[in-house]
Amino acid sequence: MLSTKETFRQIEQDKTLSEYAEFYKHQLLKDTVPFWFPKSFDKEFGGYLLMRDADGSILDTDKAVWIQGRACWLLSTLYNTVEQREEWLTGAKLGYEFLRDKCFDANGKMYFHVDREGNPIRMRRYFFSETFAVIACAAYAKASGDQEAAEMARSLFTICLEYAKGDRQIDAKYENTRPSKGIGIPMIMINTAQQLRETIGDPRCDEAILAWIQEIEENFVKDDIRCVMEQVAFDGSIIDHFDGRTLNPGHAIEGAWFILHEAKYRGHDPKLIDLGCRMLDYMWERGWDKEHGGILYFRDVYDKPVQEYWQDMKFWWPQNEAIIATLFAYLMTGNEKYAEWHKQIHDYAYAHFHDREHGEWFGYLHRDGKIAQTAKGNLFKGPFHLPRQEWYCWKLIEDFNQSSHDD
Amino acid sequence: MLSTKETFRQIEQDKTLSEYAEFYKHQLLKDTVPFWFPKSFDKEFGGYLLMRDADGSILDTDKAVWIQGRACWLLSTLYNTVEQREEWLTGAKLGYEFLRDKCFDANGKMYFHVDREGNPIRMRRYFFSETFAVIACAAYAKASGDQEAAEMARSLFTICLEYAKGDRQIDAKYENTRPSKGIGIPMIMINTAQQLRETIGDPRCDEAILAWIQEIEENFVKDDIRCVMEQVAFDGSIIDHFDGRTLNPGHAIEGAWFILHEAKYRGHDPKLIDLGCRMLDYMWERGWDKEHGGILYFRDVYDKPVQEYWQDMKFWWPQNEAIIATLFAYLMTGNEKYAEWHKQIHDYAYAHFHDREHGEWFGYLHRDGKIAQTAKGNLFKGPFHLPRQEWYCWKLIEDFNQSSHDD
Repeated sequence: MLSTKETFRQIEQDKTLSEYAEFYKHQLLKDTVPFWFPKSFDKEFGGYLLMRDADGSILDTDKAVWIQGRACWLLSTLYNTVEQREEWLTGAKLGYEFLRDKCFDANGKMYFHVDREGNPIRMRRYFFSETFAVIACAAYAKASGDQEAAEMARSLFTICLEYAKGDRQIDAKYENTRPSKGIGIPMIMINTAQQLRETIGDPRCDEAILAWIQEIEENFVKDDIRCVMEQVAFDGSIIDHFDGRTLNPGHAIEGAWFILHEAKYRGHDPKLIDLGCRMLDYMWERGWDKEHGGILYFRDVYDKPVQEYWQDMKFWWPQNEAIIATLFAYLMTGNEKYAEWHKQIHDYAYAHFHDREHGEWFGYLHRDGKIAQTAKGNLFKGPFHLPRQEWYCWKLIEDFNQSSHDD
Repeated sequence: MLSTKETFRQIEQDKTLSEYAEFYKHQLLKDTVPFWFPKSFDKEFGGYLLMRDADGSILDTDKAVWIQGRACWLLSTLYNTVEQREEWLTGAKLGYEFLRDKCFDANGKMYFHVDREGNPIRMRRYFFSETFAVIACAAYAKASGDQEAAEMARSLFTICLEYAKGDRQIDAKYENTRPSKGIGIPMIMINTAQQLRETIGDPRCDEAILAWIQEIEENFVKDDIRCVMEQVAFDGSIIDHFDGRTLNPGHAIEGAWFILHEAKYRGHDPKLIDLGCRMLDYMWERGWDKEHGGILYFRDVYDKPVQEYWQDMKFWWPQNEAIIATLFAYLMTGNEKYAEWHKQIHDYAYAHFHDREHGEWFGYLHRDGKIAQTAKGNLFKGPFHLPRQEWYCWKLIEDFNQSSHDD
């Protein structure tokens, strides 16, 4: 493994890294964020109006609780790490207060979907609304100094830990005939804990993150078949049915960079770098579309048809996660293969997803790259994966640049 | 409106109708049914092994309860209406007994998904497993003379009626903020009651069918905007949010021919013919893809993006339903427009979906007609919409032919 200093020397020979940083910064601040804010601030009912068509017009005034949390996290993070812009802080407050006041049921469980006023539309069994509220509250607490928000972040994190460990039960979707577990829980918990640790801090995070990484490595990463499983039996074995065979390359690649993030945090831990890069390698091989470019949505571990018929569409977020992971792997290893992959996915994604007319990205392309539908925001898409990628990549390059000058 | 006799005289001038009947019969008996049976009979554990790839190889040994019921209905119906082939009756019995013995939980609710042995994998809140079990048991009871099967059909129909009327509660998916109802319930109940009536008979059917048709006409059919809604408020008003705006043209077109079926049953009732044809007209206009051909999956009532990102895929079953509805509308009205539509959808569908190598149809095409994935059977696709269409269209033409000669 190369040291930070050696890596950056290599990088400096290739001037495009700084250009990438500049590009991501520019896209974030001049194209992506302005598509959403300030126009999405709902000053009347709180939170954000984020369900928008290509041109920014409102498609639906409802509020997806995941996306409300993510938007609050983004605004708070911009305030914390880019510039203490008042608009971002007051915007973040709108989201924090809406989450706090409108998104919980009487039992303290968070809804999935509420209407503009905050009346409940749908509760789901999962606790992802909670995980996104943790990072929203934590980042907002750091931005604002609000102690109540910090306490809310920590107490919601406690609830998430209970769910993740099984101490708090989620309503079962499946019977007990064929028990399985998904990579989604350890992954989201790693990222949630990392965000909590790096904003307001929490002593539980370090150990928990390592335990979840261990679970991923031991149960989901299959070196013999070069694969990261999305779902496995409790002993880590592959379940040879539709669900068990279904891979989500973009998701596993997101997991890869969460682990590289941890490697960097822990002084460039070589074992974690190796794990993150293996995950990226395996799932790039399975997810990259050699015919049309871009990351495919689902694949079957044995190349059979998957149950989800839209499996070969190109969604925005797997591309965002692959842009981060390939850049990160390059910066951590200096391996030119990753620089090449980063260029490939970057070029593909900005050529096909970016809306040059109105800013931001389209969300849903056919396999061949044609736009399948124009919504920029809906129940699942909002200001998160794209701005996070632009922010993270910009800051990552800056950070490596800084480290190399510090040596 | 033309009488049966007049209609058929018009038709006879165009010889292709008999050719269509011959084609559908041939496809059903020489191509579609042989793809599935007898090889899918699970003589070891009962029921059918239907999750198959293009070449017929098994993708998954699990059993989807909807599809088990539908396959049992198909085999029984072939026995009842085509030929008393022993293989079809013994095959139907396998499905009937599997449904009866393996697909109910302790409370008498039917599962959605079980494994090969019949161990439960997933319960869902809906009662569609029950509706398909009604038609399976009723058709099997007629084929076999089994009184227990007839009683099971009637008692499950009672349960379905209770669900449909709200006397038996389904676990709520949504909170009560914005109550809505779908066209799916009245539609499936019409078809279930029609099948029950026309196999073993049930005095509750006639009145109930008319009430559901009335509900569809009053609440879902919007003449002012030429549209059949998929979901509306309880007073029939349009809910201007993603879900409420989403149309499912293939589904509404299926509803159209259920109503034409009722019109035919009731001596060519002109009001019902008019209603069925209006529904077909409206949703053909909205569903037919003028660029590539075929029926699109989802549309937004105001042409906005829909939440379901795969909305412009071509699934097999909307094409099957449109083939029936257009043929039926032509036979009922003699309007050449419908003959033209029938030719269009027939030609498109058999050119793009039919697998000339292995028989049966692919299930999932991209908008442009390319095959998105090759599965012939999975949790949602099996021997139903295609063989039902081929059987129904063949018998329908025969029936009109017979009526014209009877006059």
